Amino acid sequence: MAVQYQETAAECLLPIEGIRLTVAQAGVKKEHKDDVTVMILDEGCTVGAVFTQNRFCAAPVRLCQQHLNQPHDIRALIVNTGNANAGTGKQGQERALAVCQSLAQQLACRPEQILPFSTGVILEPLPYEKIIKSLPSAQDSDWLRAARAIMTTDTIAKAASRTTQIDDCVIKATGIAKGAGMICPNMATMLSFIACDAKISAPLLQQLSKEVADLSFNCITVDGDTSTNDSFVIIATGKSNIKEISDSQDPRYATLKTMLVSLALELAQAIVRDGEGATKFISIEVEQAKNVQEAKQIAYAIAHSPLVKTAFFASDPNLGRLLATIGYAGIHDLDTEQLRMYLGDVLVAEQGGRANSYTEEQGQAVMNESEITLRIELNRGHERATVYTCDLSHDYVSINADYRS
Amino acid sequence: MAVQYQETAAECLLPIEGIRLTVAQAGVKKEHKDDVTVMILDEGCTVGAVFTQNRFCAAPVRLCQQHLNQPHDIRALIVNTGNANAGTGKQGQERALAVCQSLAQQLACRPEQILPFSTGVILEPLPYEKIIKSLPSAQDSDWLRAARAIMTTDTIAKAASRTTQIDDCVIKATGIAKGAGMICPNMATMLSFIACDAKISAPLLQQLSKEVADLSFNCITVDGDTSTNDSFVIIATGKSNIKEISDSQDPRYATLKTMLVSLALELAQAIVRDGEGATKFISIEVEQAKNVQEAKQIAYAIAHSPLVKTAFFASDPNLGRLLATIGYAGIHDLDTEQLRMYLGDVLVAEQGGRANSYTEEQGQAVMNESEITLRIELNRGHERATVYTCDLSHDYVSINADYRS
Repeated sequence: MAVQYQETAAECLLPIEGIRLTVAQAGVKKEHKDDVTVMILDEGCTVGAVFTQNRFCAAPVRLCQQHLNQPHDIRALIVNTGNANAGTGKQGQERALAVCQSLAQQLACRPEQILPFSTGVILEPLPYEKIIKSLPSAQDSDWLRAARAIMTTDTIAKAASRTTQIDDCVIKATGIAKGAGMICPNMATMLSFIACDAKISAPLLQQLSKEVADLSFNCITVDGDTSTNDSFVIIATGKSNIKEISDSQDPRYATLKTMLVSLALELAQAIVRDGEGATKFISIEVEQAKNVQEAKQIAYAIAHSPLVKTAFFASDPNLGRLLATIGYAGIHDLDTEQLRMYLGDVLVAEQGGRANSYTEEQGQAVMNESEITLRIELNRGHERATVYTCDLSHDYVSINADYRS
Repeated sequence: MAVQYQETAAECLLPIEGIRLTVAQAGVKKEHKDDVTVMILDEGCTVGAVFTQNRFCAAPVRLCQQHLNQPHDIRALIVNTGNANAGTGKQGQERALAVCQSLAQQLACRPEQILPFSTGVILEPLPYEKIIKSLPSAQDSDWLRAARAIMTTDTIAKAASRTTQIDDCVIKATGIAKGAGMICPNMATMLSFIACDAKISAPLLQQLSKEVADLSFNCITVDGDTSTNDSFVIIATGKSNIKEISDSQDPRYATLKTMLVSLALELAQAIVRDGEGATKFISIEVEQAKNVQEAKQIAYAIAHSPLVKTAFFASDPNLGRLLATIGYAGIHDLDTEQLRMYLGDVLVAEQGGRANSYTEEQGQAVMNESEITLRIELNRGHERATVYTCDLSHDYVSINADYRS
């Protein structure tokens, strides 16, 4: 189902020293299905994380934020699928904490050293006793099985690895994600975890997490619905033989960032490719902007327009809809005479209207593809941004109208 | 097709003294179909108008703005359907002006005394010669025929009348609209014209137009796609025997405004009821807000969420989607513990989660209706706003994926 994306083979996913994975079957999602994943970290790992901005953020998100602000090392992450523990009030907090307490006891650490994550239906009480009961029977897992165990309506597991070189050391990174966030609204969550064996100070890793998210997960949208549970975590185990990176001016920081952005972007794009009902994968590049903010604003206006998305679904080069969207994106001093728009390599609009050289056949040929790049040159600056999205199809309506009923 | 809306009978639409309507068949939309409407104003009428904020606004919109800024009275409005004259660059401006010049010659006035309006496909050159050629054969029309002549993909003509009393005079108002704007994306335009026989100074009428639009057309959305041609015009012929209203503190201003808001709201709601693929009409009331802006922000976040809209289509009381949407509406200090949400009269959420008293049967009963009110009490202030929208159905995707191809 996913647009131009295949599952990575288990043997292509690099183990990361310092992290042990286990999965269990708690029966939260379905009986006899992996639905609880635990990542156990050796002492000395650093963890950076970014979370949803949704004011109805889930109980585990709030708990994660508290636990990341205490002085002890994080020793484990626990993820359940099938229930988001969001919109569950004070009881939700207590239940998320109870899960942490149980796992902490097993690992002989403090409950605050555990980060809990949940994904699934909103507004239902978390069946925390099932989760706790499943923990003793958890089995060792590789990254692919873990990627499958956090899936909800995803049709494909999302996992990838990368390597880079720092101080003559090969640095390894492996990450997993579930296709959700603004895409899989029935559980309304996007989760991603990346682990690497680099050594990096905790404050800098936090900054890096934000920077990587801004260049990957914060560039995707399916339907604009920001979830209650979005979480993105980078773990650095420090097991490689490099000296700690503790300064963002250190050139090794840039090397590490390049690798992690590449990995995160593959996972983020995989979420779009597996978007509900998606038949096309669309990259929207806005260039020559005054600042990144306005470039993103225009790209998102296009990516969220139901008219544009249905036109992509229909393979219809409906340029009027694209121009109208740019026009209402909220850039109040935008001079529409100045911009140029390209569909693939075809110049389709300039000087406030259709390009003279444009033919419908050229536009149609690009629209028939399953991967399409739309590029807009604003001719008012030097900044740029890219947003990735998919089309709006009948299947999107079916999936979301049928769910829960 | 339209949700709970029927065409008003021609004899229920009040003629407005000082305005003569004609329609012509130019063959812009289809052959042998009314597609050009002219409203001829007696001397001494005042006109107020508000237009789209889209930066790709259509050529006629720009021309209207110029013509409203010159000192001579407006003497006629001309509207064509079938072509939006948007995204047409300099040529589009010239063609809109040519239409004004031709009508001005016929009416023995200046071209700047004509306001041109277009609606239909974007990016296609305006067939202005056809329009000019049709003018001599225009026939006298009543308001209903005019309402039909400006339709595009509307399934029903939108027209209504109101009366009120000022200075012992009965003041009459009649208005028409076409269902478009954010609803009928294939021509991406919403137009509405209201005429009344009140006497009101031009600057005050301009202020009134803005105020009425903010309480009616600026409260509706179907898909969030702001069009290139949106225009809303109020004409005051001054033919009633009242003294001119020239001060917004004059109590007669409030009386007039109440009538016009009521009329505009009926037309605006008719556009939503006739929204593409609509099967439900949904009112979203946000109360107890700190200010109107944040109330509208939350209401629009709900109204634009594809997940919420598909849940309404499925008659699914999916409360989690509604709460998630409120959470990401951008109110950064929103305390989710404080708000209450009602579906119809049923309290569905409070204290950050589902209300204890709530049952799925209650929610389901409300969702089964074709007219649904969602009410949210924020418990943080005294301001409020209401937004009207419809659901997102398979027909919406079909209509917009099939169009133009």
